[in-house]
Amino acid sequence: MTNEALELAINLVWIMLGAILVFFMHAGFAMVEAGFTRSKNTVNILMKNFLTISTGGIIYFLAGYAIMFGDTAGGFIGTSGFALQGIEDITFFVFQTMFAATCATIISGAVAERTNIMAYMAIVIVMTLFIYPVVGHWVWQGDGWLTGLGFVDFAGSTVVHLTGAVGALVAAAVIGPRFGKYKGKSVNVIPGHSIPLGALGVFILWLGWFGFNGASTLAADPSLVPTVIACTFLSASAGVISTAFYTKFRYGHIDGSLTLNGALAGLVGITAGAANLSLVGAIITGFIAGIILVEGVRFIEWKLKVDDPVGAVAVHGLCGIWGTLAVGLFDATGGGLLYGGGATLLGVQAIGILAVIIWVACTMSVSLFIIKLIVPLRVTREEEVEGLDMAEHRSTAYEYQQTAFSGLTSKSESLAQRLTALGTQPDIPTKHLS
Amino acid sequence: MTNEALELAINLVWIMLGAILVFFMHAGFAMVEAGFTRSKNTVNILMKNFLTISTGGIIYFLAGYAIMFGDTAGGFIGTSGFALQGIEDITFFVFQTMFAATCATIISGAVAERTNIMAYMAIVIVMTLFIYPVVGHWVWQGDGWLTGLGFVDFAGSTVVHLTGAVGALVAAAVIGPRFGKYKGKSVNVIPGHSIPLGALGVFILWLGWFGFNGASTLAADPSLVPTVIACTFLSASAGVISTAFYTKFRYGHIDGSLTLNGALAGLVGITAGAANLSLVGAIITGFIAGIILVEGVRFIEWKLKVDDPVGAVAVHGLCGIWGTLAVGLFDATGGGLLYGGGATLLGVQAIGILAVIIWVACTMSVSLFIIKLIVPLRVTREEEVEGLDMAEHRSTAYEYQQTAFSGLTSKSESLAQRLTALGTQPDIPTKHLS
Amino acid sequence: MTNEALELAINLVWIMLGAILVFFMHAGFAMVEAGFTRSKNTVNILMKNFLTISTGGIIYFLAGYAIMFGDTAGGFIGTSGFALQGIEDITFFVFQTMFAATCATIISGAVAERTNIMAYMAIVIVMTLFIYPVVGHWVWQGDGWLTGLGFVDFAGSTVVHLTGAVGALVAAAVIGPRFGKYKGKSVNVIPGHSIPLGALGVFILWLGWFGFNGASTLAADPSLVPTVIACTFLSASAGVISTAFYTKFRYGHIDGSLTLNGALAGLVGITAGAANLSLVGAIITGFIAGIILVEGVRFIEWKLKVDDPVGAVAVHGLCGIWGTLAVGLFDATGGGLLYGGGATLLGVQAIGILAVIIWVACTMSVSLFIIKLIVPLRVTREEEVEGLDMAEHRSTAYEYQQTAFSGLTSKSESLAQRLTALGTQPDIPTKHLS
Repeated sequence: MTNEALELAINLVWIMLGAILVFFMHAGFAMVEAGFTRSKNTVNILMKNFLTISTGGIIYFLAGYAIMFGDTAGGFIGTSGFALQGIEDITFFVFQTMFAATCATIISGAVAERTNIMAYMAIVIVMTLFIYPVVGHWVWQGDGWLTGLGFVDFAGSTVVHLTGAVGALVAAAVIGPRFGKYKGKSVNVIPGHSIPLGALGVFILWLGWFGFNGASTLAADPSLVPTVIACTFLSASAGVISTAFYTKFRYGHIDGSLTLNGALAGLVGITAGAANLSLVGAIITGFIAGIILVEGVRFIEWKLKVDDPVGAVAVHGLCGIWGTLAVGLFDATGGGLLYGGGATLLGVQAIGILAVIIWVACTMSVSLFIIKLIVPLRVTREEEVEGLDMAEHRSTAYEYQQTAFSGLTSKSESLAQRLTALGTQPDIPTKHLS
Repeated sequence: MTNEALELAINLVWIMLGAILVFFMHAGFAMVEAGFTRSKNTVNILMKNFLTISTGGIIYFLAGYAIMFGDTAGGFIGTSGFALQGIEDITFFVFQTMFAATCATIISGAVAERTNIMAYMAIVIVMTLFIYPVVGHWVWQGDGWLTGLGFVDFAGSTVVHLTGAVGALVAAAVIGPRFGKYKGKSVNVIPGHSIPLGALGVFILWLGWFGFNGASTLAADPSLVPTVIACTFLSASAGVISTAFYTKFRYGHIDGSLTLNGALAGLVGITAGAANLSLVGAIITGFIAGIILVEGVRFIEWKLKVDDPVGAVAVHGLCGIWGTLAVGLFDATGGGLLYGGGATLLGVQAIGILAVIIWVACTMSVSLFIIKLIVPLRVTREEEVEGLDMAEHRSTAYEYQQTAFSGLTSKSESLAQRLTALGTQPDIPTKHLS
Repeated sequence: MTNEALELAINLVWIMLGAILVFFMHAGFAMVEAGFTRSKNTVNILMKNFLTISTGGIIYFLAGYAIMFGDTAGGFIGTSGFALQGIEDITFFVFQTMFAATCATIISGAVAERTNIMAYMAIVIVMTLFIYPVVGHWVWQGDGWLTGLGFVDFAGSTVVHLTGAVGALVAAAVIGPRFGKYKGKSVNVIPGHSIPLGALGVFILWLGWFGFNGASTLAADPSLVPTVIACTFLSASAGVISTAFYTKFRYGHIDGSLTLNGALAGLVGITAGAANLSLVGAIITGFIAGIILVEGVRFIEWKLKVDDPVGAVAVHGLCGIWGTLAVGLFDATGGGLLYGGGATLLGVQAIGILAVIIWVACTMSVSLFIIKLIVPLRVTREEEVEGLDMAEHRSTAYEYQQTAFSGLTSKSESLAQRLTALGTQPDIPTKHLS
């Protein structure tokens, strides 16, 4: 083999490893979302995760990749390569496909426990077919208008995470909070059903992120890859530490769920700048991301009154914004404000963030409006109270629930008991429950 | 280093990555099998999975590899290289060892919840020592008789999955159904105890399959590997989608367990043809595999009356057959019927399938007959009702079961209650229960 | 690219793969430790695991790496490269960082269910800042005094595992047993809360060990890597088999928890010699490690009366010693006693083991003495009985516990009930419980 062929082969192994790790992030998302929601909706959230990666992958193959990386129309949208026609080397496609469904899966967590699965499938299709590929085209295709401005987003704090999070925020707001979340002025905590599942999911996501960021170099480059991996690791670590001790300071105890999300905050935060920041810059970025997370979760839940069961908007949205801006501050390769690069890059980063927020908010709003004409966005209240597993899948996730359901003398009694357990009187007429 | 040495090193990394991923599939099998069975048998099924990979690996090292890849005796069986004597480069051995225990572990799911662990160990030994290596010799050693005919099975739809599934079918039929599965004309559903464990297992298997298929190229070849990975991914995705919507159509709801198995159906289906099919061919193959799975599970459970708790025979057997035939239909490299290659390849594929079914069915039947002379194939009914964890391992898998067991006033009361909970009157005399 | 650059790139991919796999071992440790302890302490042990890898990683970056691999002061301690100053290529640093937190995480299992999280954090800092890096300097920096003697510890049976285990033994002894473990002459079994979590953790650790041992070659060398991977696999397999059947022989049944630990015993055992032993030597080493584990757990629990909830001291300590000595016996490259190499190597191995035990025992004792002056080493008895999740994190790990807690009429009633459930009368005055 020639040296050129050998180089191609080495890069192939590195990119395939990255693709495989990013694929596995979907297991991480599934475990996090299942763990952080109630056990009566577990089969449903798992089905949504499996259908996200499956449908997203096939849609991206058929059209999303073409819209993202095809020949540009004015720096705005790709126009060639549908179903990979005319594309010889599909290495890059394989890697990008694994990325594509990530945006959509961010949404699945934010709209968990009350969204109709068919409406959710439509959201997945819109995201992977159009909304995300267009953003990707702007930044990563090479001829995109944001690339032209000098916007830096190495592995997708904005392209992937902010895009997903804005979609999640709009969808969660439109679909509305879970029954029992807001009652008058009180904001009820609805804890997840299994912290170990959530913790496992975070570890899997952290693992996958080494592929997500690491293979975004697209080459096994010894002068770049170790730095990217080290930045990714140190930022996540700083996110864990800052969240743990900030919650200790803020709430008097190290909060389990928030600290797990703190790792993700650090990871999202470093995604834009993993190839540009110094290791110390990465630690600072992750540390601040952890604090943004804690305050962000509270802000979204208490001030915006948007019910986001897994904290996806704070993790992927606020920390995505922070990570994108952090490049403008800490870019050690020349552009960072704090490294003598002036404010230009910081300004460009802000423009990119605003453009993506506007684009996703508008297209997602229109999409939801259209989807709602065809299929209801959420399940009925009775189905929500009963749990989506029984209502949509006629099964339970756990053996101990089988006993619980089989032991009921009547269905309406079960529902009434559950409503009471939620600390509320059932405000739906009993006759609807039969 | 010379270019030749560099090429060797690159391929080494790719094959080792594959081997490591295939190893991890055993974690996937363990989680799927544990999740899809009852919690009273969880420690037992986990032990069986750990002992399968351990014993299978050592047996394969001592003799299985020699029988599979040693110098041929008439294209039927290998005869050299026991304990790797005379073999310099063991890269290929490492990869193959991780494959070897897979056949046996397919059986563990099908015979779960009632099989004596010693009898099961004997099955593992027979499979990895002899039954599987002989099939592998026919197809993958180079001088095997099926290779001579032109049989195509890239990564083992037939060699690994069908071989395991036929063994599973024979063993499950001979050992008989679980107590309570068939009662007169009714076929009872015995749900698994944890869908999240099952879902995690499927994700791990899907991940591992990228190594299973991807590294079966045995080289980091940029013209082949990305296609193999993409085919694998798209077929699994199509399997998920077709199973989800076919169960919706067939049963009125998206079925959780079947949809998880749908991913595996797509993966088994593409295993034979991952290097030969087009991406669209892979999607069609996976899509059809998902439907075969749903009907196959029903056929085996209701018509054949074989109790296969995790659906292993349908997933690995029927989809293995389908995947092997799909190469004959969709082979885009020249041989596929639908790609102008005529029916020759399809015929050869059918011959290979038949030969493997006959070989495995006969040898497994004889093996079970012999094993039965030495050790009972299944546990006693009392042990089965009590659960294999307490009966064979004197422990429970979960904390909440400890309370359940410690709270019992007497053991016979417990059994009677459990029998009643199964919807049956105990038909074993109470005196046997003390 | 030049051949030299290509070689660098290949080795980079191999080492990064190793680093990523070793990172994932922390997920394995977290699942093992969570699964093998009670559900009332699950959030706490998960937090400890996340904080171990995070804090350990950052401390190691700031100073640990410099103390371990910096320019030597007399073969005893490194003195340069703090915060990686002056270090160009950080590939090796990335790999070593993932190792560093492993020592500390071994301790977290041994002191689980009763240790104050702040005291534990101090232990993590001491281990990754100083105790472990000094041992690593002696053996792996190149100019260390044990290297000078000819001490062989390929991937860390002594450097990582024994170091961690001695720290664990000292800490567990000083902190004392869990409430209810020892009552007069009786030694109570306190089973873990989820064997599936533990089993998953062991599979993840086994997976990660392929990176731990495999990439310790620091090069994608076809003449060495496959042997290292095969040795690792076969030794773990032998550990599973010997533990399973030795517990069957010793206790009358295949013990679930011990057999899972048997895999780890085989892995720890082969870590020192994975590059020096023959495959048969690896199988023997793992087989013996499994038996040492079973007797070791009993010895530590019943004779030493040290309460080690997950068996960490036996797995990492006794099997670490055995693995280090096994090199002296089975080294097939020239030094092994049983391969005609005389007793010199065996003697050097023994010296290294003794030196590490003395060093870690002394420094950890002093550290604990100092830590105790600042923060209590263990939680109060009330907090321990209530569970660390509620006491330190104000939450539960599982949904079903939420119901349990919310249904309590008073907190003191809960504690009294729990004490009774432990089979003891509460020997703490009720007034302290309010």
